[in-house]
Amino acid sequence: MADPRFYSVTGPFTLEALAEISGARVAGEVNLDATFTDVASLNTAGPADVSFLDNKHYIDDFAKSKAGACLVHPDLAAKAPPSMALLLTENPYHAYAWVARSFYSAVAVAAFVAPSAVVGETAILGAGCRIEAGAVIGERTEIGRRCHIGANVVLGDGVVVGDDCEIGANASLMYCIVGRGVIMHAGVCIGQDGFGFALGPQGHLKVPQLGRVIVEDDVEIGANTTIDRGTGPDTVIGAGSKIDNLVQIAHNVQLGRGCIVVAQGGIAGSTIAGDFVMIGGQVGVAGHLRIGAGARIGGQSGVMRDVEAGATVIGSPAVPATEHWRQVATLANLSQKGRMKGK
Amino acid sequence: MADPRFYSVTGPFTLEALAEISGARVAGEVNLDATFTDVASLNTAGPADVSFLDNKHYIDDFAKSKAGACLVHPDLAAKAPPSMALLLTENPYHAYAWVARSFYSAVAVAAFVAPSAVVGETAILGAGCRIEAGAVIGERTEIGRRCHIGANVVLGDGVVVGDDCEIGANASLMYCIVGRGVIMHAGVCIGQDGFGFALGPQGHLKVPQLGRVIVEDDVEIGANTTIDRGTGPDTVIGAGSKIDNLVQIAHNVQLGRGCIVVAQGGIAGSTIAGDFVMIGGQVGVAGHLRIGAGARIGGQSGVMRDVEAGATVIGSPAVPATEHWRQVATLANLSQKGRMKGK
Amino acid sequence: MADPRFYSVTGPFTLEALAEISGARVAGEVNLDATFTDVASLNTAGPADVSFLDNKHYIDDFAKSKAGACLVHPDLAAKAPPSMALLLTENPYHAYAWVARSFYSAVAVAAFVAPSAVVGETAILGAGCRIEAGAVIGERTEIGRRCHIGANVVLGDGVVVGDDCEIGANASLMYCIVGRGVIMHAGVCIGQDGFGFALGPQGHLKVPQLGRVIVEDDVEIGANTTIDRGTGPDTVIGAGSKIDNLVQIAHNVQLGRGCIVVAQGGIAGSTIAGDFVMIGGQVGVAGHLRIGAGARIGGQSGVMRDVEAGATVIGSPAVPATEHWRQVATLANLSQKGRMKGK
Repeated sequence: MADPRFYSVTGPFTLEALAEISGARVAGEVNLDATFTDVASLNTAGPADVSFLDNKHYIDDFAKSKAGACLVHPDLAAKAPPSMALLLTENPYHAYAWVARSFYSAVAVAAFVAPSAVVGETAILGAGCRIEAGAVIGERTEIGRRCHIGANVVLGDGVVVGDDCEIGANASLMYCIVGRGVIMHAGVCIGQDGFGFALGPQGHLKVPQLGRVIVEDDVEIGANTTIDRGTGPDTVIGAGSKIDNLVQIAHNVQLGRGCIVVAQGGIAGSTIAGDFVMIGGQVGVAGHLRIGAGARIGGQSGVMRDVEAGATVIGSPAVPATEHWRQVATLANLSQKGRMKGK
Repeated sequence: MADPRFYSVTGPFTLEALAEISGARVAGEVNLDATFTDVASLNTAGPADVSFLDNKHYIDDFAKSKAGACLVHPDLAAKAPPSMALLLTENPYHAYAWVARSFYSAVAVAAFVAPSAVVGETAILGAGCRIEAGAVIGERTEIGRRCHIGANVVLGDGVVVGDDCEIGANASLMYCIVGRGVIMHAGVCIGQDGFGFALGPQGHLKVPQLGRVIVEDDVEIGANTTIDRGTGPDTVIGAGSKIDNLVQIAHNVQLGRGCIVVAQGGIAGSTIAGDFVMIGGQVGVAGHLRIGAGARIGGQSGVMRDVEAGATVIGSPAVPATEHWRQVATLANLSQKGRMKGK
Repeated sequence: MADPRFYSVTGPFTLEALAEISGARVAGEVNLDATFTDVASLNTAGPADVSFLDNKHYIDDFAKSKAGACLVHPDLAAKAPPSMALLLTENPYHAYAWVARSFYSAVAVAAFVAPSAVVGETAILGAGCRIEAGAVIGERTEIGRRCHIGANVVLGDGVVVGDDCEIGANASLMYCIVGRGVIMHAGVCIGQDGFGFALGPQGHLKVPQLGRVIVEDDVEIGANTTIDRGTGPDTVIGAGSKIDNLVQIAHNVQLGRGCIVVAQGGIAGSTIAGDFVMIGGQVGVAGHLRIGAGARIGGQSGVMRDVEAGATVIGSPAVPATEHWRQVATLANLSQKGRMKGK
């Protein structure tokens, strides 16, 4: 059970309701009116809990789980313990997301402007905003309706934030236009100068950075991630993209819709990624490249060339995944042979 | 000498006292009542300073040092300059730590709540706490005795912090339970949502993150490090673990006791590490793995499989260290041969 | 055109004035009195804009550009569209920097101390400083003239900041001495304890960190970058060095003048780099090394040995660049041969 210190649970829900919420179908003949009070992981769930299995790593936990109900792919259902009600779905994690969101629906925050928040005289706040203590909102800044601006957040002059956004504590935003439904976590830095210098042996000359950061609707940005504003063109984060913690996005980068950038990845200046590109953890993508829609880049890769749409690449320098794994195997084999020879 | 602008030194200490403080033994027949006023590095120390040698890189500096006394391993003592008093110990750095802590003992901070701090009405502050300017303490938040909460820190609703903790400026903590004697440096972000999405071509569905972060006693966490809360299970940082700057710890990760994670390392979701695991700088550990107790992972490694207790692995993908270095040598040799052939 | 929400442009400038500002020479016989009102990128510029070409990636954009004038290397001038006035220069990006700085000259900030800023009673502020809301300035802290201290910045006790510095929102500085003309972006953490522990199976003993961070004149430091103070010696960032976002600089590191560290790079403790060293993105440099002046380290490299002055190294472990690329080619060839043989 989620710690009531931090969470409040709604419900209960019947098995029938859970099937409807999740889009899953109930397996076999079980009591559709049985009620469930919470979600839980396989190894902590009890008879009143709903769990899910979406990773074969955890199939032993599934087989031993005491969960009263479980969202599971039909192909794995046979491993279930006898007393478990099964909610069958092709996409158990997606289904679980809907169930969990029902038990733990987002609590509407009460509209409020903390006395210690500093709001510019010419700033515009939409109805229903909550501005926490110590937040600093600049001049001509515009915040949409029902936004939650965390404690000690700094929104620079002129920044625009759409409706229903959440900005985490201690985040800093400037020179940016943010869409609706955007979530930024604590410590995020958006819109600072890009790393633009005309290098030279007598010193490096700073180049004015004259663009913005455009964050489209439904984007989520992880803690302490940094996104620099463009040099003239804008830096753009496409709608629905999800960026993890400690990611670096340089000036003029454009991410398409629905992109994923896992923690500690970095994308150098002016690279353009298509829709639904997936970038693994700690990946580095060089500047001025094109990454085609739907491309997938494995963790820790170093991408130095354009990547075709739909391709999967990995390695540093990154090559097609099959070629990468062949190289890994080739080197391991050669190394092993050398060892056999006593060298 | 440490800059008096920032530090105040106590002492002096006699050679005899230093031997007792450090657990080292005095070599030869020297004046046990000689006094020392400070610690210093080998190349800056003078006759009234105590220094230490713990890295063979610096043996030349040792031989030329003007330090009046030096903590050193017996095996290296022969290189000492003639006038130096030697404090012999198997573990000079450990011994130095005790000596330095004696000269520069932590100053107790005066209890104080800054007028500009915002403390929730239902928050509980232990005796002797110092809450700096602009800190924001939520509702039902509980802070132990003698804690030092830095300027502009944000502690979310319900957060618990044990006795004798230090939280650095601009840190953000939420959904977490922190033990005693924990040090968090500036800009740390603890407890934000993990990177949990049910991915899909129509968009990525956010999955509620319902766990906490448990930070056990005597943990230290570096500047701008991010630790996400669990999805349902908790994220756990074991007692005495030390985490460097800019590290990413994802949801549901469990670190055992005494683990070390060097700067810019990242550990993906649900990976479990045993006690005293050492993870080098910029290492990436994939999700859902088991890292056995005492395992060591070399810098920049990419760990994609479970690691056995006590093993040392390195490389991306990580392999046992001896195999890694053999692969490095094999490739260098083959490349060199190709070059010889004029190719 | 730069968004007037965030920027205000000066000008216009004649072609002749632009030649003088940039140090470029006008090509052919064109109207020197023609006026230009703004800078713009090649693919967005119109007849009244000045653009630049400094990367062959963009030569097609250049050939199609509608820019009225363009800074370009003489060797590429032949590709220009007929109506474009050309400003020829060996260093178009440098020249562009001067032009852009003329159109968008830094606006002097009005002196001001926000009512919600907390300034220590014994702090000293130079003339013309602007201290934004929520900033916290410690005791005995000294700030030079015309500094701009961002909202919710924390400057610890005793910190010294020179004239004409800009410190971004939510940055935290302690135990540091900062020169003139330094720019630090949002979320920077300077001067926290280095990662210094005497490791041991009974637990890791914290070693007092007794040095400072010295940031010399004209340094720029990117968002959420962390620089630890020295253990006793200082950590030093040499004059004119430029450090990108999310970089980690450990205790006792010394960077020479004019060094470049690209985003997410990390330098371990006590490493010393000479002047004008260039360190690529996501590079890791081990501790206690010497990196010679003018050395260049390719992106994602792992440097485990000293690097000679002027050398270019790459790879993990890093080797001379020619050797690295030969190794990459060797492995690709061997892997391909194995595949041919049907293995």
